Amino acid sequence: MSTSEKPTSTITTPADRQIRIERVFDAPRDRVWRAFTDPKLVAQWWGRGHKLVIERMGVERGGHWRYVEHGPDGVHGFEGRYREVTPQERLVQTFEWDGMPGHVAVDTATFEDLGDGRTKVVTTSLFHTTEEHDGMLRSGMEPGLNQSYAALDRLLTTLG
Amino acid sequence: MSTSEKPTSTITTPADRQIRIERVFDAPRDRVWRAFTDPKLVAQWWGRGHKLVIERMGVERGGHWRYVEHGPDGVHGFEGRYREVTPQERLVQTFEWDGMPGHVAVDTATFEDLGDGRTKVVTTSLFHTTEEHDGMLRSGMEPGLNQSYAALDRLLTTLG
Repeated sequence: MSTSEKPTSTITTPADRQIRIERVFDAPRDRVWRAFTDPKLVAQWWGRGHKLVIERMGVERGGHWRYVEHGPDGVHGFEGRYREVTPQERLVQTFEWDGMPGHVAVDTATFEDLGDGRTKVVTTSLFHTTEEHDGMLRSGMEPGLNQSYAALDRLLTTLG
Repeated sequence: MSTSEKPTSTITTPADRQIRIERVFDAPRDRVWRAFTDPKLVAQWWGRGHKLVIERMGVERGGHWRYVEHGPDGVHGFEGRYREVTPQERLVQTFEWDGMPGHVAVDTATFEDLGDGRTKVVTTSLFHTTEEHDGMLRSGMEPGLNQSYAALDRLLTTLG
């Protein structure tokens, strides 16, 4: 299915230490999964159009990832480790920004085939404290997320 | 002060996602701090007498650590990152065991000079979930901890 509506992310707080993000992509699930797990593809959307260097990305249980984004406001490193990799279904990994080292969220992404060629991705982040949860929401997460997902929309149209 | 009593750790659960460990060492605070932050010293007690390879240990905010313990039951990797390093006062770092990748606790250690040549170390671990907290308590943490701290007692008597 194709739509002219601009897709939007729905961001909610299902519990005081959680952030839930729901987004529908106009592409089949295998293609969306590839875009989330193939380093060459991640490099094309995760950085919102900025240069993204993927230093590590071992997509398997226990593997590490580390991305460095070269943006107009400087260089930002992000890293974490994979807890669960279930192809096309679930990807669970930790997330840590160099600017707040030792503050670690656990991100659980699920990929749902909507049966009409579209895929719903739901990401739930769990923080150690409510302060970290609130800080993430206040950090300008939402515009950055929307830019990344818009870049992903464009990338998905080019994947065969 | 010297005592013939065998020192013991006090382990409590101040909140449902926390484990608190209190232990007094018969050594001045600067010596205890060194034993926790100098890789050559950590290698002599943290592994409970087993061979411990310190692969990384950059003791500063944002630095990483990774230890590999070669025990009779196999090889176990542990790693994390420093959130706060305040010499002789506070050491905050994340903790993750390779056997449960992506499950991360935050350990906050404080070092209190008791004024009589002894030092009280209080370590509080915060988990993302109560299940992780309960799993750590059930893992046989306490005997391992007591072996490590007994090895640390012996090491501290040798430090000048």
